[in-house]
Amino acid sequence: MSQLKCLLLSNLKHVKAYRTGHTRLQHRTFASSTWLHLRTTELDSSNLSGLKVDSSRLWDTIHSTAKWTSKTFSEDIKHAGLSRLALTDEDKSARDWFISTTESLGCKTHVDQMGNVFAIRPGLNSEKPATFAGSHLDSQPSGGRFDGVLGVAAGIEMLRVLNDNWIETEGPVGVVNWMNEEGARFPVSMQGSSVWAGRVPLEKAWAVRSVSAGARDATVKEELERIGYLGDVACTSGKEGTPLGAHFELHIEQGPKLEKATQKVGIVEGVQAYKWYTCTITGREAHAGTTDLASRADALSFAGILMARVRGIASNLKGLATVGMLQVSPGSVNTVPGKVTMSLDLRNPEDRGLRRMIQKLEEFIWIVNEGVLPPSYQPQKKMVTQEELAKYAKQRENPLTRIQIDLREDFASAAIKFSDEAIGCIQESAKSLVGERNIQLITSGAGHDSVCTSMHCPTGMIFVPCKDGVSHNPSEWCEEEDCAIGANVLLHSVLRMDRLRKERGDFD
Amino acid sequence: MSQLKCLLLSNLKHVKAYRTGHTRLQHRTFASSTWLHLRTTELDSSNLSGLKVDSSRLWDTIHSTAKWTSKTFSEDIKHAGLSRLALTDEDKSARDWFISTTESLGCKTHVDQMGNVFAIRPGLNSEKPATFAGSHLDSQPSGGRFDGVLGVAAGIEMLRVLNDNWIETEGPVGVVNWMNEEGARFPVSMQGSSVWAGRVPLEKAWAVRSVSAGARDATVKEELERIGYLGDVACTSGKEGTPLGAHFELHIEQGPKLEKATQKVGIVEGVQAYKWYTCTITGREAHAGTTDLASRADALSFAGILMARVRGIASNLKGLATVGMLQVSPGSVNTVPGKVTMSLDLRNPEDRGLRRMIQKLEEFIWIVNEGVLPPSYQPQKKMVTQEELAKYAKQRENPLTRIQIDLREDFASAAIKFSDEAIGCIQESAKSLVGERNIQLITSGAGHDSVCTSMHCPTGMIFVPCKDGVSHNPSEWCEEEDCAIGANVLLHSVLRMDRLRKERGDFD
Repeated sequence: MSQLKCLLLSNLKHVKAYRTGHTRLQHRTFASSTWLHLRTTELDSSNLSGLKVDSSRLWDTIHSTAKWTSKTFSEDIKHAGLSRLALTDEDKSARDWFISTTESLGCKTHVDQMGNVFAIRPGLNSEKPATFAGSHLDSQPSGGRFDGVLGVAAGIEMLRVLNDNWIETEGPVGVVNWMNEEGARFPVSMQGSSVWAGRVPLEKAWAVRSVSAGARDATVKEELERIGYLGDVACTSGKEGTPLGAHFELHIEQGPKLEKATQKVGIVEGVQAYKWYTCTITGREAHAGTTDLASRADALSFAGILMARVRGIASNLKGLATVGMLQVSPGSVNTVPGKVTMSLDLRNPEDRGLRRMIQKLEEFIWIVNEGVLPPSYQPQKKMVTQEELAKYAKQRENPLTRIQIDLREDFASAAIKFSDEAIGCIQESAKSLVGERNIQLITSGAGHDSVCTSMHCPTGMIFVPCKDGVSHNPSEWCEEEDCAIGANVLLHSVLRMDRLRKERGDFD
Repeated sequence: MSQLKCLLLSNLKHVKAYRTGHTRLQHRTFASSTWLHLRTTELDSSNLSGLKVDSSRLWDTIHSTAKWTSKTFSEDIKHAGLSRLALTDEDKSARDWFISTTESLGCKTHVDQMGNVFAIRPGLNSEKPATFAGSHLDSQPSGGRFDGVLGVAAGIEMLRVLNDNWIETEGPVGVVNWMNEEGARFPVSMQGSSVWAGRVPLEKAWAVRSVSAGARDATVKEELERIGYLGDVACTSGKEGTPLGAHFELHIEQGPKLEKATQKVGIVEGVQAYKWYTCTITGREAHAGTTDLASRADALSFAGILMARVRGIASNLKGLATVGMLQVSPGSVNTVPGKVTMSLDLRNPEDRGLRRMIQKLEEFIWIVNEGVLPPSYQPQKKMVTQEELAKYAKQRENPLTRIQIDLREDFASAAIKFSDEAIGCIQESAKSLVGERNIQLITSGAGHDSVCTSMHCPTGMIFVPCKDGVSHNPSEWCEEEDCAIGANVLLHSVLRMDRLRKERGDFD
C-alpha cells in the first residue's frame, strides 16, 4: 500500500477536503487509473470506521424532496408528512430528481417496463451485476417522510461519500427506486419489485387500476406512459433485465421494538408472511325507516361482525388483521346497505400461522354462506356456539336476511428469511459503528421490496428506530442522528459485500 | 239537477265516450259556463263510486317515465328499478315531462326557489289554495320505480280523469313534485318540502353539497341553476309562496304489513320520529404490518363496535338504527384507518322513544371520549359493564389507542299525526272502493313530504302494498291493480276534500 493511500485511510475527512477542488470530469479521468483511488478490498473493518455519511446533507435530501407531495399535513416538520402516491405528478417529480441526481454523481440510469429506476456507479469490473442500495420514493396517501425515502436518500448519500472519498468499488454499486412499494394507489404492494422477481406477471401488474379517490382513475400502464416512466428494459432479474448482485435496504422500523430497547440498529432476519384479500359482503338494500331490524340483510352491519371475528382470529394466532379500505353500496343515509367491499390484510410471522388464520376465516365464511358447519371444522376448537350456528342457519334460510361473503385473494407474500451473507455484512458494520448492545435482531412486520430481491440475490435490511413505532402517518419521525447511523451501516454493508463478492470471485 | 247531469252521474263511462269528440279548446270554452260540467258538490259517495282511473294509462306513466334513469338494474321489469338522484340530468328530464304533461292537461305550473314544481288546475274559485296530490320524482341511487313516482303519476292520472269526465272542482286542485325527498344525493330528506314548511332555512338548504360518488360534486343551488329549476317563487307556505289547501300523498307502504294482512289500502295515521346524524370517529393511522392489535386506535374497527352498540340500543327501545354511508380515511389496504365518517339514521314511533335512544347513544359516546361514566348515567340500566368501562378508560389513557367520537345532528323530524279531516276523506273513499276489511290504519316508518305539509294544511297519506315490503331497491314492486286502487282512493279523497272545503266556506 502506498504512503498516500495510508494517509487517505488514516484521515478520510482530510482527503475529502483536499479533493473538493476536482471536477467530476477529473474524477473520471482519475478513475481510468487507480493509483489515487481507494479500493474496497483495502477498506477492512478498521479502515472503514473513518468513512461516514454527511448527516446534515442526508437530512436535507430527505426533507427537500418532500416538497413533491400532494399535501402537507402540518407546518410543524415533525407532522408535515408526505403524500406521494405511485405514478402521480408528485412521484414523477421525485423520479426526475432521482435520475438527475444520480447521473450528476456519475451513475448510468435506466428504467424498466414497470418504472423501476436503476442508477449504477461503475466499478473496476462493470460487466457484473451491481451491489444495490434500494427502497422506494412513493408513499401512503397520508404517509411519513421516512418510509422508503430514507432508503433511497441513504443510497444517494452513499454515492456522494464514495465520490467524495475517491472510492472505487470492485464491482459496480447502485441505487434503485422501486415502483409502487406501498400498494396504496394500485393495491398490490411491492409491485415493481414483485414483477422484477417474477412473482407477478407484467401484464397483470400493468392492468391494475387506481383505487385512490384522490388520484387519477387509470391503470398502472396508462400512468407509466403518462408520466414518461414506461421504460423499455425488461422488468426481470434475468440478464435481459436488471440482475442484482446484492440488495441492501435501510428502513425505519415502523414498530416500537428498537425505541423500547433504546437500541440504534435492527438487523432484519426475515419478513412475516401476509396475504391481501378483497372481501365482498352481499346483503339486501332496504328502506331504513320501514324495514325492521330482524328483516334486514345489512351488509355494513355484518361487515362490523366480520371485522370483529377476523380480529379475534388474528389475536388468537399471534397474527395481525386489518381492514384498511371499505366501500358501502348504495351509500345513502336512509338505505340499509346491500353491499360492502373491503380489503383484508392478514399477517403472521410464520407461514403456518397465516395458513391457520385463513382456514379459520374460511370456516367462518362457510358457516355464514351455507348455514352449516364446514367439512374441515374441528368441534373441539369451539369457533362457533350452537346458538351462533342456529342464528346463521336461520339468517341464510330467509331470502330477506341472507348474507353472502366472497373472498378474493389479491396478493400473497410468504414468510422469508434473509441471506446469511448479507446479514453478516450488516452485523459486522453495525457492530463496529454502534457496538453490539445497540443492535437487535428483528423480524419485519411489514413487507418491503427486499422480500422480492431476496428471491434472486443476497439481501439484507437495516432498521432504525422511529418515534412511537408510528408509520403510515404524517407524524412518522426518525431523528437525524438515527438516519445517519442507518446510512453509515448501509454504506459499510455495501462496501463489505463488494469486498466479499470480489473475494469469492464474483468479478473475475 | 238537470236531466243531463243525472245521466252523467249514472254512467260516467258512457259520458266519457260521448265527450271524446271535444277538443281541449272546446273544453276550455265549456269551462266558462258550468251547465255541462260536474261539480264536486254533486259527487257524493254513491256518485263518486263510478269514477275510476285508467289503470293501464297510470301503469304506462310509471314505467315510461322510468326511462329517465342513470342506470337500469335488470332487463326484467320487476327488477329494473330506477336511479334518479335529485337535480341530475335524469331528474331534469322527469321535471320537464312533469311540466309539459300537466300544462297539456290544462294546469298552470310554477317552480319555487327550491325547485319544487306546482301544477294547478283551475276550479270554480281559483283565488284560493288548491287541494294537492303530491309526492316526488327523485329516487335512491338504486331505487325502485314506485317510491314517490306512484304519487306523482297518480296525481297526473287524477288530472286526466277530471278532464275526461268534465269535472269542475270548487277550488283548484293541483299536483306537486317536491324536490329531493330522498335525501340521497343531498343528505337532507324531504328537503324541498322542509324549506317550504319553514323548518329548514332556504340558504342552508341551498348550501348542501352532493355526497353521492356517482353525481356531480356541487351544491343544491348550483345544481338548481344548472338544470334550470331555480324558480323565482318564494319557497314558503305563505301567500308570497305556494299555500296549499290540503295535501294527499299516495305511496307504496315500504313495509310488509298490508301484504301480510292481504289488505289493499293503508290509511296513514302519522309518521315516526327520526333524526339523522354524521358521526366522526377519530383514531390513529398506523402501519398494518407493524402495529400490534393492542397498540391500535383503529377507527374502522371501532365503527363496527359503535354500529353494534347503536343497533342494540335501537332494538331495546323498539326503534331502528341504520348506518347507510361510511367513508374510511386514509383508505389504504395496509394502513390502519385513522378516521371514519358515517351517517346515522335513528327512528322511533314515539318522540320519547327517540329521545331515549339518543340519550343512550350520547352516554356511550361520553364513556368512550372521557373514559368515565357520564353524569346522567343510571347505573341500574347496566349499559356498560365494569370490564367495558375499564377498557374504555385504558383506551383513552394511551394516546396510541385513543378514540374520539363526534356526533353532529343533520336533520330531525318529530313524530307527527295527520289531520282527522284528511284521514276522514281517505277513510270514506277507501271504504266505498275496497270495503272495510281491506283497510289498515298504519304508522309510517318512513318520512314523506306529507310530514312537512301536515304542518300547514290538512294532510293525509294512502299506502298500497309492495312486494315483500321491499323498497329503496330495484326490486321494489307494486302490482298494477294496487297502483290503480291507490290512485282511485287518492282521486276520491281529493274530490271529497274539495267538497268539504266548499262546505265549510273555504272558497267563499
